[in-house]
Amino acid sequence: MDKFSLSSYRVNPKKFSLKQIKPDDKSARTGDKTEDLAILAQLTEAINERQDVLHAKAEHKVLLILQGMDTSGKDGTVKQVFSACDPLGIRLASFKAPSEDELAHDYLWRVHAQVPRKGELVIFNRSHYEDVLIVKVHDWIDEAEAERRYQQINDFERMLSESGTTIIKCFLHISKEEQQERLQERLDEPAKHWKFNPKDLDERALWDKYMQAYERAFQETSTDYAPWYVIPADSKTNRNLLISRILLQALEDLPLTYPGKPKAWNKLVIKD
Amino acid sequence: MDKFSLSSYRVNPKKFSLKQIKPDDKSARTGDKTEDLAILAQLTEAINERQDVLHAKAEHKVLLILQGMDTSGKDGTVKQVFSACDPLGIRLASFKAPSEDELAHDYLWRVHAQVPRKGELVIFNRSHYEDVLIVKVHDWIDEAEAERRYQQINDFERMLSESGTTIIKCFLHISKEEQQERLQERLDEPAKHWKFNPKDLDERALWDKYMQAYERAFQETSTDYAPWYVIPADSKTNRNLLISRILLQALEDLPLTYPGKPKAWNKLVIKD
Repeated sequence: MDKFSLSSYRVNPKKFSLKQIKPDDKSARTGDKTEDLAILAQLTEAINERQDVLHAKAEHKVLLILQGMDTSGKDGTVKQVFSACDPLGIRLASFKAPSEDELAHDYLWRVHAQVPRKGELVIFNRSHYEDVLIVKVHDWIDEAEAERRYQQINDFERMLSESGTTIIKCFLHISKEEQQERLQERLDEPAKHWKFNPKDLDERALWDKYMQAYERAFQETSTDYAPWYVIPADSKTNRNLLISRILLQALEDLPLTYPGKPKAWNKLVIKD
Repeated sequence: MDKFSLSSYRVNPKKFSLKQIKPDDKSARTGDKTEDLAILAQLTEAINERQDVLHAKAEHKVLLILQGMDTSGKDGTVKQVFSACDPLGIRLASFKAPSEDELAHDYLWRVHAQVPRKGELVIFNRSHYEDVLIVKVHDWIDEAEAERRYQQINDFERMLSESGTTIIKCFLHISKEEQQERLQERLDEPAKHWKFNPKDLDERALWDKYMQAYERAFQETSTDYAPWYVIPADSKTNRNLLISRILLQALEDLPLTYPGKPKAWNKLVIKD
């Protein structure tokens, strides 16, 4: 899969409709599961190698934002795409319902505190986008406030980009039917009970409003410096292959090389 | 290797001398490298499985503290022992030279901020022990202050333990000769230059004072609730096998099971 085909999952804000991308699309797969998994293993290993140089060079910053409905596979993506990665160079930041202290600040406060430092690859499991999604679906903010926030988010992300951060935003796009199956699994399988939250059903009832809020957010905030990708995610393998390719491409686009050796070190002797 | 043999690496504070444990000891190895690596792969997978339940149950907290001289393999341990672990449930906290803000607080302040929450396994790469090691070797604190700190550290760790934290402290014990080889490698191999810091040579010159400070710290702070283990670490495989076994044992000693299903959920139906 080359850059061109990856770009077909990238949101072009001027003419984007969520209908353009089907949740059950499996174009990233070969049709042979064993081959898919072998390719995925190669991709995760290649990501691990590039991430090692990212860490060693300690100059660039990479931020991967994962958004999606409940059960869309945010946790699973982290587990599988980063399975080969050294914990030294990656960090996961999960954003749940804000605490009292967090609510007492602006919504970008807790997010800014978690952005990557030089050499770091940080994954956001949910993000500041919840502040134009769940709050909009429930009418906790009005349209004027939503529009201010789209602009604030674009300004914030542009500042991060101008400060050396590569930003990739992925929406894990599942169908409502797929979510039904996955929620049922959580109810049925003992090792998955802990993931089930009855409140998820309340959000599920608002599915259509969520899709509208996501579509609008993509139209307003998919920029050159922080593009959105919509990832067909009914197939977990398709999802993992696509996200791995997008991330690897971003890492390959960075001028990453191991730092050289200062001349002064040539005189150094390590004594007994 | 059973519990009994692991205990021979555990510091008994009443009669401990660092001389009891040789850096080049390889007793954890089988003598067959391929078999060692297969065992290590099984151990890391078993750790990953237990850590998944730790995360799901979200009740217990686990803290692994790694200390050791430069090049002793703290980074390598993290990379290899946790290679199979899901980034969701583990977190790495690295403590470097303190910032101005950190120095303006007590030395436990930045450490306390990073302790594990329920369900989390946190690895400390260096720790509050630097505050009775490097500062003592350089005589930045006097003996009276060192003694106050041993007691403060024991009190702090007891509080963490009483609040549900399993604490494991590992010293990666390498010989001065092994450090010489590893520093030379960092000077010689382009992919390792970035790990070399000329200042490490200044600390190397203080080797004996460091060993005294470590020995004293182990005698003063190896407790029932937060024991020290001295890990022979000239052999990386020996080191990885031992730390994996100690960690797995600690996880197996916890009553970890996936959370059950509330009866109320039996009535739930997930609608279209």
